[in-house]
Amino acid sequence: MAPKLLTLPFFLLCLSLSSARLHPLDPLTPSEISTIRRIIKNSSLGSSKSLTFQYVGLDEPDKPEVFSWLSGHAAPPRRAFVIARSDRQTHEIYVDITNHSIASDKVYNGFGYPMLNLEEQGEASALPLKYEPFIESVKKRGEDLKDVVCTTFSVGWFGEVKQGKRLLKILCFMEGDTVNFYARPLEGITVVVDLDAMEIVEYEDRFSVPVPKSVGTDYRASKQKPPFGPKTKPGVVVQPEGKGFEIDGHTIRWANWAFHLSYDVRAGSIISLASIQENDNETHRRVLYRGYVSELFVPYMDPSEEWYYKTFFDAGEFGFGLSMSSLEPMADCPSNAAFMDVYFAHQDGEPIPIKNALCVFERYAGDASWRHTETEIPKEVITEVRQDVSLVVRMVSTVGNYDYVIDWEFKTDGSIRLGVSLTGILEVRAAPFTHVDQIINDEHGTLIAENTIGVYHDHFITSYLDLDIDGSNNSFIKSKLKTVRVTDGETPRKSYWTIIKETAKTEADARIDIGSESAELLIVNPNKKTKLGNSVGYRLISNGATAASLLTDDDYPQIRASYSKKQVWVTAYNKSEKWAAGLYADESRGNDNLAVWSQRNRVIEDTDIVLWYTVGFHHIPYQEDFPLMPMLSGGLELRPSNFFESNPLIKTKPNKHFQWPNCTNNS
Amino acid sequence: MAPKLLTLPFFLLCLSLSSARLHPLDPLTPSEISTIRRIIKNSSLGSSKSLTFQYVGLDEPDKPEVFSWLSGHAAPPRRAFVIARSDRQTHEIYVDITNHSIASDKVYNGFGYPMLNLEEQGEASALPLKYEPFIESVKKRGEDLKDVVCTTFSVGWFGEVKQGKRLLKILCFMEGDTVNFYARPLEGITVVVDLDAMEIVEYEDRFSVPVPKSVGTDYRASKQKPPFGPKTKPGVVVQPEGKGFEIDGHTIRWANWAFHLSYDVRAGSIISLASIQENDNETHRRVLYRGYVSELFVPYMDPSEEWYYKTFFDAGEFGFGLSMSSLEPMADCPSNAAFMDVYFAHQDGEPIPIKNALCVFERYAGDASWRHTETEIPKEVITEVRQDVSLVVRMVSTVGNYDYVIDWEFKTDGSIRLGVSLTGILEVRAAPFTHVDQIINDEHGTLIAENTIGVYHDHFITSYLDLDIDGSNNSFIKSKLKTVRVTDGETPRKSYWTIIKETAKTEADARIDIGSESAELLIVNPNKKTKLGNSVGYRLISNGATAASLLTDDDYPQIRASYSKKQVWVTAYNKSEKWAAGLYADESRGNDNLAVWSQRNRVIEDTDIVLWYTVGFHHIPYQEDFPLMPMLSGGLELRPSNFFESNPLIKTKPNKHFQWPNCTNNS
Repeated sequence: MAPKLLTLPFFLLCLSLSSARLHPLDPLTPSEISTIRRIIKNSSLGSSKSLTFQYVGLDEPDKPEVFSWLSGHAAPPRRAFVIARSDRQTHEIYVDITNHSIASDKVYNGFGYPMLNLEEQGEASALPLKYEPFIESVKKRGEDLKDVVCTTFSVGWFGEVKQGKRLLKILCFMEGDTVNFYARPLEGITVVVDLDAMEIVEYEDRFSVPVPKSVGTDYRASKQKPPFGPKTKPGVVVQPEGKGFEIDGHTIRWANWAFHLSYDVRAGSIISLASIQENDNETHRRVLYRGYVSELFVPYMDPSEEWYYKTFFDAGEFGFGLSMSSLEPMADCPSNAAFMDVYFAHQDGEPIPIKNALCVFERYAGDASWRHTETEIPKEVITEVRQDVSLVVRMVSTVGNYDYVIDWEFKTDGSIRLGVSLTGILEVRAAPFTHVDQIINDEHGTLIAENTIGVYHDHFITSYLDLDIDGSNNSFIKSKLKTVRVTDGETPRKSYWTIIKETAKTEADARIDIGSESAELLIVNPNKKTKLGNSVGYRLISNGATAASLLTDDDYPQIRASYSKKQVWVTAYNKSEKWAAGLYADESRGNDNLAVWSQRNRVIEDTDIVLWYTVGFHHIPYQEDFPLMPMLSGGLELRPSNFFESNPLIKTKPNKHFQWPNCTNNS
Repeated sequence: MAPKLLTLPFFLLCLSLSSARLHPLDPLTPSEISTIRRIIKNSSLGSSKSLTFQYVGLDEPDKPEVFSWLSGHAAPPRRAFVIARSDRQTHEIYVDITNHSIASDKVYNGFGYPMLNLEEQGEASALPLKYEPFIESVKKRGEDLKDVVCTTFSVGWFGEVKQGKRLLKILCFMEGDTVNFYARPLEGITVVVDLDAMEIVEYEDRFSVPVPKSVGTDYRASKQKPPFGPKTKPGVVVQPEGKGFEIDGHTIRWANWAFHLSYDVRAGSIISLASIQENDNETHRRVLYRGYVSELFVPYMDPSEEWYYKTFFDAGEFGFGLSMSSLEPMADCPSNAAFMDVYFAHQDGEPIPIKNALCVFERYAGDASWRHTETEIPKEVITEVRQDVSLVVRMVSTVGNYDYVIDWEFKTDGSIRLGVSLTGILEVRAAPFTHVDQIINDEHGTLIAENTIGVYHDHFITSYLDLDIDGSNNSFIKSKLKTVRVTDGETPRKSYWTIIKETAKTEADARIDIGSESAELLIVNPNKKTKLGNSVGYRLISNGATAASLLTDDDYPQIRASYSKKQVWVTAYNKSEKWAAGLYADESRGNDNLAVWSQRNRVIEDTDIVLWYTVGFHHIPYQEDFPLMPMLSGGLELRPSNFFESNPLIKTKPNKHFQWPNCTNNS
C-alpha cells in the first residue's frame, strides 16, 4: 500500500477536513455528519416532525474504486448511508456528500426495524416513572420511586405473522445505595412501549419477589471497605525510543504492517486494507480488506414470561459502535497507548463524540516471538531469542450491563488475532432463594448471591473477515487430516495421518462445525504461489470459545440467528452482505441473514470471498461473576501459511537492551 | 499456608543448607545430590564400573507428612529416588538422605528403560564419526566429515516380543556455514547403537538425496544480511514500587497466591501447594497440590524406514527438565523477571547447574482484569477499570530441535493458566524436490524449502494436575448442557438449554473427548460449600490446541501413548502414578501408562483425585516454520467456579498512576 497521503502536493495537505484529504474508507467526519443532516433536513423528509436518525454511516466505495484511489487516481465521491424513521416508516437514504445531494430515498417495507437510537431509549426508559400502574407496583413493593432506574430491552420476534409495531420492553431496577442497579431487578413487572407513539402499550405486574440487597454489589473503588482484595504492584511500559507506530489520518503503519482503522455506529472498530511486507525493502501484500464485529447474538435460557424474549442482537439492535465506552488511560489501555475519538450521529442527526473510544498500543507481554538454544554443536552454546512485540487496536462496547473488549492484534510474524473479552455485569433474575437447598426446580441459572439467579445464556460474536490474500480472488481450503491404515507390511507402523485438501466449490462446502473433524481451514490465493510452488494463504485458528447455538432450529430466536449453529461460513463477496443478522435486526424474522445468503450456494472458488467466524461462549454463571465478572476471553487467529517464503522474523535484528536506573517517580 | 520459615527460631535459619530449613517439597540441593552419589558409590553398586545415574529426584513425602509439616510438626526425612544402570540392569534405589542410607535397591525387570542421560547420548553421537562405513557414506555424498553433527533419537517399540536391548538411533546432519544443522539431514543413513555396549550394532545407508543448502537456514542475528525483517521499538516494564512477589527459598508469595516452585529432571518446573486467599485477612485455601508437565508425546507421520520410529516421549526418554535451557534475560523473560538456577545429577551422579533455568515475573500485558462503564444513571457516568497483573513462572525445554515454553500463570481472579508454546526448529526430511510441481506421491509433509520436507507430526503435552480444591477429597463433575424442547405452550420459546450435572463415580466416567459434547468440566469439593450452598470448585477451560491422536489403536506408538486419544482423564490419587507414559518410557510397551491405570476404574468420587489434561497440536508445517518456527501456543485454564463468595477483585483498590518523565537511557 503506497502511503497515499505523502504523494499529494503540500497545498492539498493544508485543506483542512476537505474530502480531498480523506481516505475513501475514512469514517464520516463530524462536519460530514452535520452536512448529511442538513441535506436531509432540506429534503422533503425535513418537514416531518417525527424524523429520527437511526443509522448514519459511510457508504463505502466499491472495492475497485478504493484500489483505483490507492494507485493514484481520483478519490471516489464521499457517500453516506442513512436509515431514518419518519411517520412510522423506515427510510433508506443514500446521500452524496461531495455533491450535497440525496442520491436516493426509499421506504423499506420488509420485516424488522433499524437500530435503536440512544435518545428514544432514554425517553422510553423514563415512561414508567410517570405511569400510574408502575408507580403503584413500586409502592406495593415498599420501594422508593426516586431510586428506580429503568432500561431498555429489545422484544425479539416470536412467530407473529403480521408486521408488528416498533416495540421495546422496559425493565426497572433499584439503585438505592449502590450504582449496580442491574443486581437489583424489580422482578415480575414488564412494560412494553410503542416507540413510534412513545407510549406504554402493555403493562404487567405478575408477581413480586424480594429485591436483592445492595450489600456487596457496588463495584466502585471508593465504596470498598476492608478486608480488601489482592494487591499488586504498579507497572508501566516505557519505550526509550518512543512509539513504533505512526497514525496518519486513519492509516496506521507499524513494523511490517499497514492498515486503516475506522469505525461504524453499528460495528464499532473496523480494520481495512491490512497488508504486510516480508522484508523491509519489499512491497506490502494484502491480507484483510475489511474486518469488524458484525453481530453479537446473546440468547438467555429462561423461558418464563419475563425472560423468554431476551435474545439480543447487540450490534443490530443497540449499536456496538454506539455503545462504545471512553477508554480509561492507564487501565483500559496501557501507558504507552494512543487514543482516538469517534463521532456518531445522534437521533437528530448531529454528530456527538465519544472521546478516547479507540486505543492503539504496542504490547510487551514479556514473551518471545521465537527462540532456540543449540547445545549439540561441540564447544559452543547458541541461544537466539527475539522479544515479541505486537500492536493492539482496542475498543470496549458496553451494551447495557455487559462490557465487551474487542482487540485486533497484529503480530510481526504475520498473524492477526481477534480477541473478544467479556466483563461487566450479569443479567440476573430476582428470586426468593437465599440458599441452594431451597431450590427444587430448574431455575435456569445459578444462585450467585442471595435472591439472585445468574441466568444461563450464550454470547455469539460473529466477525466479518473479508480476506484478500495477496489479491481479491481467493479460495477456501479444508486440509482434512485422515488416518491412513498401513496394510502393505512395508513399515513397522500400522498407521499415520496425512492431508486431503478440499477446495470449497460453493457456499454449502464452507459451513463448518469447528471440532466435528480434524481439519485446518485456509484461505488461499490459488493464483499466487511461493517460489516453491505452494499457494499463498492464511489459516484460521480458534483460540478457545468455540460454542455454537444449542437452540432448536425452529425456535424463533434461532430462526433469526440461524447462522449461529456453525462457527464458520464463507460467502461470495457482496457489498450489501455486511450484517450477519440482516440489515434490520430488531424484530427480524431470519429472512435476511448470513445463513440465508449462504443458501444461495454461490461459487466461492477463485473469487472474492468473505470468511465469517463466530466466537461463542455458553455462559453458566458462577459466584465469581458477581457483582461484576472478571474478564473471560476467546478469539481467533489468522496465521500466514505459505504466505511468506520463510519466517520473516529470522531476519529481524534483536533490540538493544535497556536498563532504567535513573527513573524517578512522579506519581 | 502459614509461612513456615518465619516460625522457626533464628538459629535454625542460620544452619546453612541443612535439611531442617528445607521445605519437604524442595528439589534436591547440590549437596544432597552429592550425598546421594556418595551413599550409592559406597554401596555394593559402587564397585560397578558401568554404574550410571539415569534419574535422580526427590522422593517426595506422602501428602499427610507435608500437611503435618505445614501445621508445624517436624519435617519428614529427606529421601531421593534414583534410577541407575549397572551391568545392563536397571536399579530402583530409594536413598534416605537424612540418615545417609539406602532404604531399598531393587532391580527392575519389566519392559522399557529409564531416561537417557546426556553423557551417554554424547558418547553415542560421536560413534559414527569414527565408524568406517559411515565415513564412507559421508565421502560418497561429497560432504566433509568435520562438518557432520550427529544427534540421538529414541527407537520406540514396534511389536518385538522379547525384551529388547537398550538402543538408540543416531542421525547425522551437515553443519557447514550454518549452525542450523537440523535443516540439513544426511538422509538415508540409520545408525543403531547398543547403549550398554556403547557400540554401533546396525548400520544402513539405503539411499542418498541432496543435502539441503545452508543458504537461509542460519538464525543467528550476526549472520543476517539485508533486507532485514520487521523492526519494532524496544519496550521495558518498570515497576516503581519494585516487584510484588517474594521468593522465600522455593516458596513464592504474590498478591493473593502462595505456592512452591520446584523442578525435576524429568518434568521440569513443578508447582506445588498453590493456594489463594479471598480477601487480605483470610487464610489461604488449597487449589493445586502439585502440577507439572508429565509427558510430551511427539509422533511423526512418515512411515518410511528412516522415519517410522520417530514417536518421541520427550519427558520420559530425554528428560524435559534435563533439556531445560538457560533463559536469556530481557528476551526469554522481561526486564522485571527474577531467575532461579536448577541442579541435576549427571551420569556420574554429580550435580551440574543449569543457570537461570526458571524465571518468575509479573506480566503487565496492557489488559484490564475487569471493567464497567455505567451510563444509565442520570447525570453521572461511572467507569471502573482494574489493571490486570499476573504472575508467570516460565521454563524453556529444548529437546533437540524443538523449544517448548511452559508458563504457569497465576491470576488475581483466582485462575491458573498453563501455557504451552512451541518454537525452535522443525524435524525435516531431505528430498529431491525443489518445487511442489515435482511431487507426485504423498510425501508426508510440506515442501518448506528447497530439498526440505517439513514432516507432519503431533505434539501432545500432558499435564499432571493434582487439584486439592479446598481440601483433599474432591469430585469430578460434568455439567452437561442439554437442549430442552418446550412443548407445554407456556412460553413463546420453543427451546432453551439447561445443565445436567453428573458426578463421575469411577475413572471410566472421566475419560473425556473435548468437543464431543457441550459440557463444563469441574473439580469440586463436595464437602465445602459457599455460604449460598454451592460446592466450591474450579473448572477446566481449553485455550485452543485440543487435538487428540489420530493413530489407530493397534499402532505401536499409540499403544504406548494410549492415553493420547482423550484430552481429559481423572484418576484416583496414587503417589506412584506420576508419568503419563509410565515410569520407563524408553522402549515402553504401553503396559504402564495413564490409560492402563484408568482401566482399573477406581472410585473417583469424594476422594483424592488427579486431573490429567493434554494440550494437543496437529502440526502441518508451512514455509513460515522455516528455518525456525514462530511461537505457536495453546493451553488450559483452571478457573474458580463458586470457589469464592464473589469476584475477589472488586475489593481491590486500583493502583496509583505513575508518569515517568525523568528516565534516562543507560543502554
